[in-house]
Amino acid sequence: MELHGWPTDVGIIAVEVYFPSQYVDQTELEQFDGVSAGKYTIGLGQSKMGFCSDREDINTLCLTVVQKLIERNNISYTEIGRLEVGTETIIDKSKSVKTVLMQLFEESGNTNVEGIDTTNACYGGTSALFNAVNWVESSSWDGRYALVVASDIAVYATGNARCTGGAGAVAMLVGPNAPLIFDRGARGTHMQHVYDFFKPDMASEYPTVDGKLSIQCYLHALDKCYEVYSSRAKATGIKSNVLDNAAAFVFHSPYCKLVQKSVGRLMLNDFLSDPNPDFQGVYSGLEQFKDIKLEGTYFDKQVESTFVKASQKVYEMKTKPSLLMSNQVGNMYTASLYGGLASLIGKETAENLAGKRIVLFSYGSGLASTLFSLRFSDDLTPDSTLHRLFTSLQDLEQRLDSRTKVHPQDFDANMKLREQTHHLAPYNPVGSVEDLFSGTWYLTHVDNMHRRKYDRTSDSPSSTSQTSTTVKFMCYLEGN
Amino acid sequence: MELHGWPTDVGIIAVEVYFPSQYVDQTELEQFDGVSAGKYTIGLGQSKMGFCSDREDINTLCLTVVQKLIERNNISYTEIGRLEVGTETIIDKSKSVKTVLMQLFEESGNTNVEGIDTTNACYGGTSALFNAVNWVESSSWDGRYALVVASDIAVYATGNARCTGGAGAVAMLVGPNAPLIFDRGARGTHMQHVYDFFKPDMASEYPTVDGKLSIQCYLHALDKCYEVYSSRAKATGIKSNVLDNAAAFVFHSPYCKLVQKSVGRLMLNDFLSDPNPDFQGVYSGLEQFKDIKLEGTYFDKQVESTFVKASQKVYEMKTKPSLLMSNQVGNMYTASLYGGLASLIGKETAENLAGKRIVLFSYGSGLASTLFSLRFSDDLTPDSTLHRLFTSLQDLEQRLDSRTKVHPQDFDANMKLREQTHHLAPYNPVGSVEDLFSGTWYLTHVDNMHRRKYDRTSDSPSSTSQTSTTVKFMCYLEGN
Repeated sequence: MELHGWPTDVGIIAVEVYFPSQYVDQTELEQFDGVSAGKYTIGLGQSKMGFCSDREDINTLCLTVVQKLIERNNISYTEIGRLEVGTETIIDKSKSVKTVLMQLFEESGNTNVEGIDTTNACYGGTSALFNAVNWVESSSWDGRYALVVASDIAVYATGNARCTGGAGAVAMLVGPNAPLIFDRGARGTHMQHVYDFFKPDMASEYPTVDGKLSIQCYLHALDKCYEVYSSRAKATGIKSNVLDNAAAFVFHSPYCKLVQKSVGRLMLNDFLSDPNPDFQGVYSGLEQFKDIKLEGTYFDKQVESTFVKASQKVYEMKTKPSLLMSNQVGNMYTASLYGGLASLIGKETAENLAGKRIVLFSYGSGLASTLFSLRFSDDLTPDSTLHRLFTSLQDLEQRLDSRTKVHPQDFDANMKLREQTHHLAPYNPVGSVEDLFSGTWYLTHVDNMHRRKYDRTSDSPSSTSQTSTTVKFMCYLEGN
Repeated sequence: MELHGWPTDVGIIAVEVYFPSQYVDQTELEQFDGVSAGKYTIGLGQSKMGFCSDREDINTLCLTVVQKLIERNNISYTEIGRLEVGTETIIDKSKSVKTVLMQLFEESGNTNVEGIDTTNACYGGTSALFNAVNWVESSSWDGRYALVVASDIAVYATGNARCTGGAGAVAMLVGPNAPLIFDRGARGTHMQHVYDFFKPDMASEYPTVDGKLSIQCYLHALDKCYEVYSSRAKATGIKSNVLDNAAAFVFHSPYCKLVQKSVGRLMLNDFLSDPNPDFQGVYSGLEQFKDIKLEGTYFDKQVESTFVKASQKVYEMKTKPSLLMSNQVGNMYTASLYGGLASLIGKETAENLAGKRIVLFSYGSGLASTLFSLRFSDDLTPDSTLHRLFTSLQDLEQRLDSRTKVHPQDFDANMKLREQTHHLAPYNPVGSVEDLFSGTWYLTHVDNMHRRKYDRTSDSPSSTSQTSTTVKFMCYLEGN
């Protein structure tokens, strides 16, 4: 056994988020789609949905979030030794988004940057994050930071699922002495072959979805991961009973309501595995459920509503703060879980979370899933990395509020535009550039070999001339 | 600094290869294509090209090679804690091949297996391999093996590049106390945004290629990686001047001739960086080249032929043995480099390579590239892992020779069949099952939701009734 030291406190040092500058309101979308009022807002728990025009693709989202992270943290590109991207927004079957991001490194001369893209539905970002942490702890590490990007554009064909779309990107800086530290050895993974959600139609941006199966898979994966996590966490000295001992639970969120049900599901797991459940306390009134089996309850409405209700306080306190971006932007696929993490940090304070443990559940259809935990450092001195992390995300709600609302009709036109043009070559995008946030990368041209050219909006605040976008969309569609 | 031990001698414990049971002869293909005799065979250095009927896809290749590795090494699926796939043969934009492989684990009940798919052209397997090694050295490691799969189906549109296709899969078992050990810290990476080869036409299996640019990128990446590798290797105590101190150099091989040129290129690098080149010895007659710049010589025929000639002996001795699969099967993309490694082990003996260092160059267009090195253990006792590794690949040439030769006309019909059907749903494949090697997974049906069903040929030796395949192809095409 060679003795080398793992660096201490390896984890997440900084987090940057990006979401589109425009959104559609879910109440208005209910009306536009002619569904019952509350179906999207109360039924699914969604308020707003971000979306991209034809000016944005997976490359622009990642370029934007990486450059923002580097600039806001005042880091040189030479300080990055690993960079990888988790995404399922595949616009090229071979060339990784990572290689496109290398354009940002050109001026620095640093081309010695390991890592490429990882893919399995919404799980890619988690895989990239684990790879980054492992790299820092391995002999391959060269002392530099790792950078992890999770990003996707989630769009669905016209119909029931369209309202569960979204788009966004999260970048995370990984290294030792981090303010958000990985719990070593505490991890539960469940992988399985299943066709719950997949993208076999290569020419379309839309997935093939078996919605009911996907919910079952998600909850089953949560059960399996929680079982392994609990046993491993116990072995590493973390107290069992996650619900009591963690300050927050962050979930991959296809829509907020499923996350609320998942908190109930965790309580159900705790309840069933408890040899002496406290029927006078937290489990009062649940006696009748003591002998049920997890497997049989995925669609048992009574069990679901009972445990959602029983876990209501826990949900409000420990999970709801992490649903800000999911509720306001929608499903960002690989970025969803880490948008949840950013939301938690943006809604909470360093003082509240210092020294506390948080549990994360990552789920990618197909399927790949892991439950793992991290712990905030407890250094509350003013210029600590912990304070910097929290400060950096304090403007999240304000940034979300600064977006432009687009009418469902224009959103619909935009979706048609994407359908018709996202694979075209040559192609000149028609979407407004002025409407983008400042410092946003956007597509300028696709040449006849499908090679894409990009530019970036200036760093001055953007104007939000919604009308111009609409007019351009309409012109394009009428012209076709 | 927490002190934990990295396991000793982390590296490759076992290697399994899979290639299609049928091939087209490159001399016959030259005639069929109406090109000058020797264009493919002498000009590119290729002899035979393996290809798949519509019975095989990326999932079957990976299922086959993983099951073979597990069976031949007598391992239980419960002993695997990580499994990931490097591929650019994307038949689903979201669902990873890794999840399909989880079917093999079902009976064992082991679903706690980390890792998903990694993608950047031919580099994905290398990324997966690095991730596996890092995992074993990190706190995430749970003591089990990692399994790495590199596999692709390389096919090109009718024309110049079609003869550079191929198909295959390599699986590698990774863990501590390995017979083929990673050199820690000795690694040079070069990543860059470039459109030399990519796959933007999502509905087609064929890539978009700028052939000349790709050669330049490959050689430039080799220069850059070699520079970083040399400096890092020196820092870790490995003697500089790789050409003298390594027993073999294995390269990603799009075609064998480029690899031979690359050996010349390494010598050119050594020559130009040598402050006192020995013009009486190895560099005799090269005085006139002392002041040239690497950058200007990518297409300098005089420089190329001079250094190919000067490095001829080195090439014959240290690289040619690794080109067996490349020459006999063709380009296997992510599997190419590791097919080269398997070839080396299959052609050499444990006695010859025990204790010796080998250098590998991985290149994936777009681009991602790394030069790294490994060292064979020196335990030559009869049942050592080193002997087992060499023994396991001794039948490689025999297996290659047992394939069925298919006439270029039938190969062409097969390619048309793939073009027309590889994305169809529902679809029932028509290719022969009897022609497959024993123990090969094959596609039985694609349902109307694009869900794929597979089966496996029995373990008894397969018959090779070439005619039946041909007839079926023809019937299908005429019927359309």
